[in-house]
Amino acid sequence: MNYQGPFIFRLEHKDKDTLARAGRLLTPRGIIQTPVFMPVGTQATVKTLTPEEVRDTGAQIILANAYHLYLRPGLGIIEKAGGLHSFMNWHFPILTDSGGYQILSLSKLRKIEEEGVIFRSHWDGSEHFFTPEKVVDIQLALDSDILMVLDECVSYPSPREYVKSAVERTLVWAEKSRKYWDLCNKAKKMLFAIVQGGIYTDLRAKCARELVDMDFPGYALGGLSVGEARSDTLRILEEIIPLLPPDKPRYFMGGGRPEDILHYVERGCDMFDCSIPTREGRTGSAYTWKGKIVVRNAAHSSDLSPLDKNCHCYTCKNYSRAYLRHLFHTQEVLALRLTTFHNLYFMSEFMARMRRAIAEDKFRVFKEEFLKNYRARG
Amino acid sequence: MNYQGPFIFRLEHKDKDTLARAGRLLTPRGIIQTPVFMPVGTQATVKTLTPEEVRDTGAQIILANAYHLYLRPGLGIIEKAGGLHSFMNWHFPILTDSGGYQILSLSKLRKIEEEGVIFRSHWDGSEHFFTPEKVVDIQLALDSDILMVLDECVSYPSPREYVKSAVERTLVWAEKSRKYWDLCNKAKKMLFAIVQGGIYTDLRAKCARELVDMDFPGYALGGLSVGEARSDTLRILEEIIPLLPPDKPRYFMGGGRPEDILHYVERGCDMFDCSIPTREGRTGSAYTWKGKIVVRNAAHSSDLSPLDKNCHCYTCKNYSRAYLRHLFHTQEVLALRLTTFHNLYFMSEFMARMRRAIAEDKFRVFKEEFLKNYRARG
Repeated sequence: MNYQGPFIFRLEHKDKDTLARAGRLLTPRGIIQTPVFMPVGTQATVKTLTPEEVRDTGAQIILANAYHLYLRPGLGIIEKAGGLHSFMNWHFPILTDSGGYQILSLSKLRKIEEEGVIFRSHWDGSEHFFTPEKVVDIQLALDSDILMVLDECVSYPSPREYVKSAVERTLVWAEKSRKYWDLCNKAKKMLFAIVQGGIYTDLRAKCARELVDMDFPGYALGGLSVGEARSDTLRILEEIIPLLPPDKPRYFMGGGRPEDILHYVERGCDMFDCSIPTREGRTGSAYTWKGKIVVRNAAHSSDLSPLDKNCHCYTCKNYSRAYLRHLFHTQEVLALRLTTFHNLYFMSEFMARMRRAIAEDKFRVFKEEFLKNYRARG
Repeated sequence: MNYQGPFIFRLEHKDKDTLARAGRLLTPRGIIQTPVFMPVGTQATVKTLTPEEVRDTGAQIILANAYHLYLRPGLGIIEKAGGLHSFMNWHFPILTDSGGYQILSLSKLRKIEEEGVIFRSHWDGSEHFFTPEKVVDIQLALDSDILMVLDECVSYPSPREYVKSAVERTLVWAEKSRKYWDLCNKAKKMLFAIVQGGIYTDLRAKCARELVDMDFPGYALGGLSVGEARSDTLRILEEIIPLLPPDKPRYFMGGGRPEDILHYVERGCDMFDCSIPTREGRTGSAYTWKGKIVVRNAAHSSDLSPLDKNCHCYTCKNYSRAYLRHLFHTQEVLALRLTTFHNLYFMSEFMARMRRAIAEDKFRVFKEEFLKNYRARG
């Protein structure tokens, strides 16, 4: 928390057998060791947990969403509160997604133009116009630490011609964002570009090359994990990651189940977010080193062992599967909290072990052992 | 926590102007200062909070419910876990209600006999038979610290003849419970009798006198706060409380809004439980020293002040009304937690101030000042 310099990414170690790498992002709000999993706090709260609990799970940075927060509660009150950190009582780094994906997936009556996108709010129908510059301004108003450019995220599957035009627009918007970012002159924040292009490798490659020419502080892969085959996801990573500058952080957007992250880290990705670990926590699925268990099920109603006997989290130290199953069965809120906490703790521990394996040039062994144990049950 | 002796009630001070009194219950699981508010944890959880948080609100003892826990998760797993305290991770005193009230209000196909009550579970229709002795056994299996006898709680309004027969049955069951309790020989627990009789003072008086003759460790008033006029409630307290032994604790069942508790303490009651402070927390109403506010309302959407600027609770130290309103508006679970925590903290602080006022012979001044400020807004 005492680092006062600019936002820096330091690559610390590359695994000898794979493209996996360990590094750290130095930010004024805290140091982030990579590879990192970022819990999702879309609406200025990581669902069910307090910020202190999120930190206690080992989280180093959380995600929030510019689209959602712009609509509710609105920027005015967040600015008045002194920014998002103060508003929500989380004093470590925050990455905000621009809302490109949410405009695609949630809003109605989208109209996409060269200048930006017109859309109607998914909850009250009000009309809004987002430009690349405005989206940067929104995220600056939130005072987020890592900002994402406005992009056009296409759904899967989409025809090549449509994806091609979305890539063109994404590039135009990225250039505008990059120029605007220079004017903003924020050394203690980072603006990340987003590589789009669906499953079309050549479109992805073109997008990546042109974004790299614009020299962004960081690069994200967007529009993946949206329904395409895993072989497509991995192929794209293998083709595109090598085009990105090795000294910049790489963020795989929206991908974050443990068994997926291993493949993405192996191919050179550093940052991950995913709502699945928290959502599964709320619906009664818990991660263990031997696979996922559905603690909500009656099978656990007489089981006094913890979710994972090798886990040191608050939930596992204090509560049995039987108690958690009882709480889910009787629809008690504490069930959601305890399982969410456990899953995020698991994710942090999983990433920490992965970092150690990379530092020791043992990533591949780590991956194989993890998957062998995890699949044995999950 | 280190007290090892038997369960003792010590009356420490009587207010000079009213029947309000301050005392303490010495129990092997902790000392309880009275008057005391007991948060409700019906299903082995005080809704939305962890046991550590419940303790941090200042709670000294919580309530659980024999009827609910007998049905779900069942006694077997709780006994296997080493009792309710260990099962739910709350290591301070627990009072369990017998289930008399729940059988009346929730279950179907009740058949009340001299020996006990036959009923069907409100959630799966299974048939069960509770006797006075069985209800003691259930609560001993839970290992609760204060047990309640099985009673017949009538709804309001009920005809006098019906209430009269319910009182007769309650007395028969109480006598059976009392005899059984002697056989159980549990010096570190207390069994409370329950005075019934609806709004009929003579029936209440008869019930109280006969229960006092049976010499129970503590006495409760049941079947109040069920819809009768407040003047009836207060009249009954004024007539019945003087019939109870002064050296035994007196528990007003189910009454616990701040403005109500003042009247009950004034008339000599020591213990209170109520689901309203936690339920109102979950529905967005917060208690303040200036009255209740509905933080869920849009009126608070730009208000950066805490729920109560004179409150030192976690919620008030860290979050604004605007943030809480945002969380309620977006249906986030954290909203329920933060407001529940605040309300229980308020109740603890309210009771602590009341105890100090009694110790200083200033109860009436405390009551009048509290109501003046509380009503000014609430």
